[in-house]
Amino acid sequence: MAYSYFDEKLPHLIIIGGGFAGLELVKKLGNKPYRVTLLDKNNYFTFQPMLYQVAAGGIGPDGIAYPLRKVVSRYPNIVFRMTEVRQVDTQNNSVQTSIGEFSYDYLVIAIGAQTNFFGNTVLEANTLQLKSVSDALQLRSSILLAFEKALTAKNEAAQRKLLTFVVVGGGPTGVETAGALAEMKKHVVPSDYKELDASRMSVYLIEASPRVLSSMSEESSDAVLKFLTGMGVEVLLNTAVESYDGNILKLNNGKIIESDTVLWAAGVKSNNLKGIDKEFLGKAGRYKVNEYNKVIGLENVFALGDAAIMEGDPNFPMGHAMIGTPAQQQARHLAKNLIRAAKGKDWLPFRYFDPGTMATVGRNKAVMEIFGTKTSGWFAWLGWMFLHLMLLVGFRNRVVVFVQWMWNYFSYDRAIRLITRPPGKTIET
Amino acid sequence: MAYSYFDEKLPHLIIIGGGFAGLELVKKLGNKPYRVTLLDKNNYFTFQPMLYQVAAGGIGPDGIAYPLRKVVSRYPNIVFRMTEVRQVDTQNNSVQTSIGEFSYDYLVIAIGAQTNFFGNTVLEANTLQLKSVSDALQLRSSILLAFEKALTAKNEAAQRKLLTFVVVGGGPTGVETAGALAEMKKHVVPSDYKELDASRMSVYLIEASPRVLSSMSEESSDAVLKFLTGMGVEVLLNTAVESYDGNILKLNNGKIIESDTVLWAAGVKSNNLKGIDKEFLGKAGRYKVNEYNKVIGLENVFALGDAAIMEGDPNFPMGHAMIGTPAQQQARHLAKNLIRAAKGKDWLPFRYFDPGTMATVGRNKAVMEIFGTKTSGWFAWLGWMFLHLMLLVGFRNRVVVFVQWMWNYFSYDRAIRLITRPPGKTIET
Repeated sequence: MAYSYFDEKLPHLIIIGGGFAGLELVKKLGNKPYRVTLLDKNNYFTFQPMLYQVAAGGIGPDGIAYPLRKVVSRYPNIVFRMTEVRQVDTQNNSVQTSIGEFSYDYLVIAIGAQTNFFGNTVLEANTLQLKSVSDALQLRSSILLAFEKALTAKNEAAQRKLLTFVVVGGGPTGVETAGALAEMKKHVVPSDYKELDASRMSVYLIEASPRVLSSMSEESSDAVLKFLTGMGVEVLLNTAVESYDGNILKLNNGKIIESDTVLWAAGVKSNNLKGIDKEFLGKAGRYKVNEYNKVIGLENVFALGDAAIMEGDPNFPMGHAMIGTPAQQQARHLAKNLIRAAKGKDWLPFRYFDPGTMATVGRNKAVMEIFGTKTSGWFAWLGWMFLHLMLLVGFRNRVVVFVQWMWNYFSYDRAIRLITRPPGKTIET
Repeated sequence: MAYSYFDEKLPHLIIIGGGFAGLELVKKLGNKPYRVTLLDKNNYFTFQPMLYQVAAGGIGPDGIAYPLRKVVSRYPNIVFRMTEVRQVDTQNNSVQTSIGEFSYDYLVIAIGAQTNFFGNTVLEANTLQLKSVSDALQLRSSILLAFEKALTAKNEAAQRKLLTFVVVGGGPTGVETAGALAEMKKHVVPSDYKELDASRMSVYLIEASPRVLSSMSEESSDAVLKFLTGMGVEVLLNTAVESYDGNILKLNNGKIIESDTVLWAAGVKSNNLKGIDKEFLGKAGRYKVNEYNKVIGLENVFALGDAAIMEGDPNFPMGHAMIGTPAQQQARHLAKNLIRAAKGKDWLPFRYFDPGTMATVGRNKAVMEIFGTKTSGWFAWLGWMFLHLMLLVGFRNRVVVFVQWMWNYFSYDRAIRLITRPPGKTIET
């Protein structure tokens, strides 16, 4: 039996956000007895784990962005609306948006996370970030523009400053971006910028804790540290950034780094909706949810993924990591519970199954800890590529990314060296 | 023998513009006894004939844009500088740019063309154009955003206005874009926007002369007209636009079309440089050149392609068409003459060899007039694709475009339906 969006007898569920959680929920509620409205300010899903490859010019944005309508259009019970959500009214079960008001029976908050500058507005104004396609294109343009400017720098000091790239934060994004920059230093700068002395280019990775990738084992952290230093990245551990004014980066050990290009990848916090009180928020601004992903204290309101912090999953008392896997699992589980509810069955509590994590540093260099095994190097790198290809949305995107990866591998090239944005911060689209 | 850019004894040639002409000249002067500086405000070459496919979401911009450094870096006697040219001083043989002053022995103006609004600033402010990658992404976003807005239009009239797309100008750009829009109406709108009545979408093509593609034979014009009308495009011949205020398009026959999205492809004019007097300009603002592409009345200054209008080519008394082929041929010929000059030989006059023209309207629908033969339909369409793949710069871009074309062909899909720009006019990058 086909359920129609226009069957008013079905309960209406609104999903805010078409990321890992929102998209998964759409797929699982397709052709189920709910009317579903998916809202997002963009008309595409962004595969955030590979944004750094867009920034490095290795793949085009169309490989990792996927039109939400291509998924939604399969299901007669689901519609998509591209809109900015202005406010939520949980008293009256409604959502105010730039295209009008929507009433809901169930609301699902799947709005993801944003970069956390920990309130430092000067940092926020002067550093780049990497959370959206726009950010990635901005970073790509900034890196390439720095090379261009370095060619005509007035002296060596000015040139070195332009060629100094600082990545703050030793999580997967930071590690992967620093690795990609080191590969540009080795393969792109010497061929594209023959007039530049490539040895004047520096890549710093700054991490406040004693090791990179602190969510992985010490073994993997050590392997990644070795990869990075071997590639020429200057990794500063136990080091925090005190300030950055667009020119001078001050560290808490008194050291100073002069740089034009600083990527801030040192933290994330949940996005938030107007109309829901701060009392419902937990750590990192995430909505506190119970084992059913229901926001504690609100009726018929759920939160998923980065936007949710769950109390009650026994193996994860601090909540789940702000990455795609728990988001997708929670969405799948919520769909299951909603379908059970429609049949009059009771709800089941969520338990996260952690398949492990992985990160790639560069060609033949990655670490992988999945299903209880640890591996690093060439095999982990192949595994990273294989799994990420599978995780991409849509057969076309897999083919397009695969072709570009093959090109990059055999040519040592990062072909998409296009400066398409003016200098400075991201223009939000 | 390898010539070095840093050998001051070699004559210095500056090329302004890395389009069809500039890029061809770079290739032909590579490893020849000249120091060559290529200047462009972008760091990439744009393959303009396929911009409309980017606008239609069929291919990504990285398929048709190519980093200029990837070409230049092959040659030790050539450098590239990304810069905006501010002024030219032909008395003192120098070029002022945003990164300083360059002296030249020879100057080559290869700055291409821009959209010609014939002085109508209201039209310029309200219509879209299609001359750059930025323009194409802007048009793509505008088309998709119109569909999104149409879903929530307040009444049928407002919806029809949003779904009315007007292309002004029946040259190749206009024909190809109108065809691509008609294909979106047939294949994309019904699947992505099930709630919309696709029959409310209209595509207009407006041409002031009695036929489309007036540079081709009447036979081809007729074939294209049949293709277009068969696809549902409303072609208005002998019709000129009087005004467009962003909402209402007035035609010279008194008719009015209400539309939010108007593409202006009704003319081009040469870009111009400050510092060179208007007396040196001919029709469409092009620099008047002699048979050696030397700007008439200036010493050691040449102009190529769209920026040049040649007097003296016996078969083309009105100058050559403002398309890529004459630009490339002129560049090749100028390189040959410069190399002859370096050997003390005399200069040869340029004669354009016209290989013919072609245009594609849609799947299996194209017209081709090359080497004296005329053909239309499926075979011409294959020919168009084959030749354009060959004309693309770089093996990677050919592979990437080919893969996307195969995808589009077998899926009837235009996969890159990403809204990545805010509404309105192009933000120049």
